[in-house]
Amino acid sequence: MEIKELLTEDLNVKSFIEEKTNEISTTVGSGLAINALSGGVDSSAVTMLAHKALGTKLKTYFVENGLMREKEAQRVISWFKELNVPVELVDAKDQFFDSLQGLVDPEEKREAITRVFYKEVFGNLVKRSGAKYLLQGTNYTDVEETVAGVKRQHNILEQLGIDTQEKYGYKLIEPLIQLRKSAIRQLAKALGLPKEIYDRPPFPGPALAARVIGEVTPQRIVTVRKATSIVEEELSGSGAFQYLAILHQDKVTGTREGKRDYGLQIEIRCWESIDAKEGSPTRLAHDILEKLAERITGEVTGVVSVTYNITKKPPSTIEAV
Amino acid sequence: MEIKELLTEDLNVKSFIEEKTNEISTTVGSGLAINALSGGVDSSAVTMLAHKALGTKLKTYFVENGLMREKEAQRVISWFKELNVPVELVDAKDQFFDSLQGLVDPEEKREAITRVFYKEVFGNLVKRSGAKYLLQGTNYTDVEETVAGVKRQHNILEQLGIDTQEKYGYKLIEPLIQLRKSAIRQLAKALGLPKEIYDRPPFPGPALAARVIGEVTPQRIVTVRKATSIVEEELSGSGAFQYLAILHQDKVTGTREGKRDYGLQIEIRCWESIDAKEGSPTRLAHDILEKLAERITGEVTGVVSVTYNITKKPPSTIEAV
Repeated sequence: MEIKELLTEDLNVKSFIEEKTNEISTTVGSGLAINALSGGVDSSAVTMLAHKALGTKLKTYFVENGLMREKEAQRVISWFKELNVPVELVDAKDQFFDSLQGLVDPEEKREAITRVFYKEVFGNLVKRSGAKYLLQGTNYTDVEETVAGVKRQHNILEQLGIDTQEKYGYKLIEPLIQLRKSAIRQLAKALGLPKEIYDRPPFPGPALAARVIGEVTPQRIVTVRKATSIVEEELSGSGAFQYLAILHQDKVTGTREGKRDYGLQIEIRCWESIDAKEGSPTRLAHDILEKLAERITGEVTGVVSVTYNITKKPPSTIEAV
Repeated sequence: MEIKELLTEDLNVKSFIEEKTNEISTTVGSGLAINALSGGVDSSAVTMLAHKALGTKLKTYFVENGLMREKEAQRVISWFKELNVPVELVDAKDQFFDSLQGLVDPEEKREAITRVFYKEVFGNLVKRSGAKYLLQGTNYTDVEETVAGVKRQHNILEQLGIDTQEKYGYKLIEPLIQLRKSAIRQLAKALGLPKEIYDRPPFPGPALAARVIGEVTPQRIVTVRKATSIVEEELSGSGAFQYLAILHQDKVTGTREGKRDYGLQIEIRCWESIDAKEGSPTRLAHDILEKLAERITGEVTGVVSVTYNITKKPPSTIEAV
């Protein structure tokens, strides 16, 4: 089935909400649906749409994959508690780290995360709950990039010919699949989500694993998580579309207290973009760049060098992996 | 023997030249000396000092190690031709690439380059010519960093306990060993070297091999050489102390014409420094940074991403390897 983009300027938010809640309600019928909330704007909007449509027939899960930002689970669950949407935390850290062990190729890492997420974690949750549907926030850019072969977005299944019913035991409902990020932000706002969510910079599904070049280990996630916190603290006021820290596998020579310190390098990216389709590096003041480098080399164990990405998309992509 | 720094403000250029030419002349006596010219300000100043001291008793070689910048050999030889200093080109490309095959550790790469340079190449030249001395432009920062263990500078031998007479069959003469870069620039100017030389940004002895993370192959040198040309073209007017391109081993995801392009990353560094002991990234305008990224991703085959280093030294070092 070909998916047609619904342009932001053609979106009537009110009738879109009505149409999608009806669709969800009709599809699920008298059964149960489960919903994967990551805390990003896409899955948050789906959560609200499905909550409106299904009420207590919806079960929303936040999967702790060990690859999230600092305190992310608590933060997201408490946001939704205020909206009266119950969210259950599923601890799947070990499953994800086990599946990532030894993998260095970006597409193999993405494939492992997809498999654990859909098959192991949600396959089990569906079985346990008796639900027949999984709701998720796939968007139009995800579809486009996966189909074009730029990178395999973790949430693209049917477009790659994967029959989720046969493979995982449930069907997918993807209410946002025709929308790009700017339209989803409008929708999220109209659905009553707080500004922290509808204005939130994108954070990819494979989470910090998409920001580690080479093998993803618990130790390397600790490093990139700490650098991510610093980047988010310093750049959350920048108004940029997205900002991130990437841990490189390459080591570089550094020096501390007059001695050699052969250590790690962190790459920072900060993007100006409307919808992630194209992007330019934000022209951050050098004061800010130098402060970022000082904080990261000072506060993140093992890091001796920090770079700032100056390439546009294309030929870059937003994330490195 | 402890080496004492001679501060730039304490340097009397005229009497330094007189003293060093006398020393060189006395040491070499009626024999022959050979001289390793790389085209940097240090070895160029030594070449002029030794030429003054020894005239035809000096034989100056430029070693083509395959790791130099574009057209470097021709450029350097023609500069010295204008100064009436004959320079002989020695082709040792294959020896260097053979010795670097399979090496990824920075210190192992540096050690291999040192061995080929001093033992194979100059060991042979000395034997062939009957010379007893090799002149070279070791400076005070080189000594300091090697002794402190920050990184093994290619030209440091005696300070590491290497007896060159026993190991390679010749003795070293290092007239600049008490000076840092700013003093050497003054000296080079006073010796009549052209501005292209006395103002030249530093370029390390291991040349482009110090700008390749991971294995150094002819193909990877072609890539970093092309990026280096672009960086030098765009930044030669910046007044910066040193500017360089580094080829990473890590690959990153990119996109071209809507398709995935998993490719190479180049890191640019541009330094404000007096003497390489400490340094800060030059606050280049974002126009310049973006132009660099556009040219490098457009003109250097395989490169999809370019970063700019924003870390000070310390904890960074000037080069990455």
